[in-house]
Amino acid sequence: MSIPDALDGLSSFLGNRLSRSKGDLAAHGQSESHFPPCPPDAVAWPETTEEVARIVSLCAAQGCPVVGWGAGTSLEGHAQAVRGGVVVDFARMDKVLQINAEDMNAVVQPGLTREALNTELRATGLFFPIDPGANASLGGMASTRASGTTAVRYGTMREGVMGLQVVLADGRVIRTGSRARKSSAGYDLTALFVGAEGTLGLITELTLRLHGQPEAVSAAVCAFGGMDGAVAAVIETIQTGIPMARIEFLDTATVRAVNAYSNAGLPEQAHLLIEFHGSPAAVAEQAARFGEIAGEHGGAHFRWSDREEDRRALWDMRHKAYYACLALRPGARALVTDICVPISALAQAVNETAADIAASPLMGPILGHVGDGNFHAVLLVAPDDAGELAEAKALAQRMAERALRLGGTITGEHGVGMGKTGLMRAEHGDGWDVMGELKRALDPTDILNPGKLVPPGNG
Amino acid sequence: MSIPDALDGLSSFLGNRLSRSKGDLAAHGQSESHFPPCPPDAVAWPETTEEVARIVSLCAAQGCPVVGWGAGTSLEGHAQAVRGGVVVDFARMDKVLQINAEDMNAVVQPGLTREALNTELRATGLFFPIDPGANASLGGMASTRASGTTAVRYGTMREGVMGLQVVLADGRVIRTGSRARKSSAGYDLTALFVGAEGTLGLITELTLRLHGQPEAVSAAVCAFGGMDGAVAAVIETIQTGIPMARIEFLDTATVRAVNAYSNAGLPEQAHLLIEFHGSPAAVAEQAARFGEIAGEHGGAHFRWSDREEDRRALWDMRHKAYYACLALRPGARALVTDICVPISALAQAVNETAADIAASPLMGPILGHVGDGNFHAVLLVAPDDAGELAEAKALAQRMAERALRLGGTITGEHGVGMGKTGLMRAEHGDGWDVMGELKRALDPTDILNPGKLVPPGNG
Repeated sequence: MSIPDALDGLSSFLGNRLSRSKGDLAAHGQSESHFPPCPPDAVAWPETTEEVARIVSLCAAQGCPVVGWGAGTSLEGHAQAVRGGVVVDFARMDKVLQINAEDMNAVVQPGLTREALNTELRATGLFFPIDPGANASLGGMASTRASGTTAVRYGTMREGVMGLQVVLADGRVIRTGSRARKSSAGYDLTALFVGAEGTLGLITELTLRLHGQPEAVSAAVCAFGGMDGAVAAVIETIQTGIPMARIEFLDTATVRAVNAYSNAGLPEQAHLLIEFHGSPAAVAEQAARFGEIAGEHGGAHFRWSDREEDRRALWDMRHKAYYACLALRPGARALVTDICVPISALAQAVNETAADIAASPLMGPILGHVGDGNFHAVLLVAPDDAGELAEAKALAQRMAERALRLGGTITGEHGVGMGKTGLMRAEHGDGWDVMGELKRALDPTDILNPGKLVPPGNG
Repeated sequence: MSIPDALDGLSSFLGNRLSRSKGDLAAHGQSESHFPPCPPDAVAWPETTEEVARIVSLCAAQGCPVVGWGAGTSLEGHAQAVRGGVVVDFARMDKVLQINAEDMNAVVQPGLTREALNTELRATGLFFPIDPGANASLGGMASTRASGTTAVRYGTMREGVMGLQVVLADGRVIRTGSRARKSSAGYDLTALFVGAEGTLGLITELTLRLHGQPEAVSAAVCAFGGMDGAVAAVIETIQTGIPMARIEFLDTATVRAVNAYSNAGLPEQAHLLIEFHGSPAAVAEQAARFGEIAGEHGGAHFRWSDREEDRRALWDMRHKAYYACLALRPGARALVTDICVPISALAQAVNETAADIAASPLMGPILGHVGDGNFHAVLLVAPDDAGELAEAKALAQRMAERALRLGGTITGEHGVGMGKTGLMRAEHGDGWDVMGELKRALDPTDILNPGKLVPPGNG
């Protein structure tokens, strides 16, 4: 019973779709973030659910870890094989299997990216709204419970996934959920696997909730003197029932970064970026009412983008903000924090965080999804400077503690991965042990993405 | 180790808040539906989470079943103690603990009813929208993943519950979720307990998502010749992105029932009942566009209710439709079915069901939540006629099989309870065993609502 035996068994049926080449291992040992490389022993490219089940069964019999891989865009090292074993790359399982337009759902394979899905949906009048910025794979997005700029209106992957096909640790293949829009038929297994980061099973198929492409869209940027006015405007807008499709915050440092990187031409102040979806009349009304509310809370320098190319430029600028921040310090890597707090505590959380960063030697622009209370500090560190990394980790630790003190969570959308297991006890107390008990029930030999999410020594 | 020992232990600290009186046992052995009475050995009325934890610990030590009880409005006998033991009645844990208006959530105890919560919220400009008809307790609604008329707009208890406090089978008390609007911090324990029907833990506190009371509301009834036109109108309305707050279907038999019971005065045809929430301008636009779409699909006899008293009468009529159907046959009891199918299959599912009922000797008016694809047949049976009950069960079984054949679920919102364990294998396959494995992990001695939801012999 060993990893080499497992690899021999796998190559017997995967042929050259199992690789041990240095290049492939290195490519699947990388992370987008600050984690050191951690190459697996092999990479497998299955093409069917049956092959995935066979891989998992064989690896379980040999005690060989199995780690899923989507597009490699995780910021928390989710897909790094910290105990070696096989990375299962879903690149060849990237098909749209069904589009059920009347039911507004699609059945897809996990390796499909969200942009590829939306390209296929273009002619249907439907779209998949969840947008974490990166062109992530949908299996990866489900596994980390991803969200992004549109969660304030359309929800996160928690709401976006209606059902799954999952390969369990013992090779059984189950289906969760159904094509009906709701169900009370037993435990919500779909919700259990969404956000489980590949530790309970490998997702091989997803049924995703779609939405109608909005008839009209209107977007704007608007400057604020600081966080308090911006948050007050957002709270009042939400309470008034004005349905924002996106509402994003950039601090002054982020605005400087996007001005330099994307030539955004914004005044050097904090900004809200907002978007409305609906009928032409509804969007016009919503925009007008938001303008009034924002004005009462100090919003100024409105710039509306009703033309699609302007909106595209706006959200392209927002999506590249992470790279814009990285470019503030050439050669740097980023530790990206991800706390989420009750919106009533958001201004306080951002202000305290900004002060903490200002008192440190690091740069750390702040931006986030203000409608959800979720924000990120992009802490820039020199790649080989252990002191800077330690400083960034201390800042991140204080942010997480701040989030918990304010009733929030250590991660709004990036997940636990390698970076946040140390904070799980503080957030969940005995609930973390319950997660360990669930893991033991479904993966008693701890072969699925071991070393992640549950308490250490759980397996 | 025995139930009597457990009861002695409980009465030592609950005093007269533990009852073995015949009246109390009978009242907690009843169901709203067709199930025979099943009185427990005792009823407990705890006042604090600590008392609930003490009850569960003591019962676990004595192998005594523990079954939660809210308002007793379940239609599937969820709270019936089929293996005896203690029913924990949450009537004394019915407080609103916090209203966080800026964060749009409330923290409540499980015995609070949805109407009592909305009464307390009235002055805040917020409301809790989920509306199963009955004035159910919020703990019960969470445990059955309830929904009702507003799910098409506001979601079900899956979306409505942000976090829980739960007493586990071994007496540990955990908190799930947070006051933040989203999180990626590990397994979604909140979703695991929502819909678990008290088999994994007892809910002692809930954090609920609130919404702004709409500025304007407009409701209408509209007649259709049959299901096909009505469903086509609803699909087109949803795809166009017109946000319906409620969209309900009544078949001709139900219309006859509500005409007789609530003096509704509707033409004897199938009807849609619809409601819009929003700004005055948005509601007017939505109503006008829905009117056009409905007209194209054969909708007629529109009657709009913009005045609050008219709307109240309309939804009161809808909420009493169950009793109106019961009154069609004085003295009858009902077996209420609850399938939910993809909306593209809804007309077919309703038409086939109506034909099946018409070919049987039973009356079975049909009504439902057409925006979700969820509908009910209220099958009327003489209380002591085993033949009629068998006929009703056979109809219900065929409905469930029809739902599964069409990609749907055996229960949209009522839950599994006593009536549907026999259908769980057909819906979930090996997934049902996974539910059993989760149950064993969290309740290894099977004391929490035993005999429900998971495969028999699981404990």
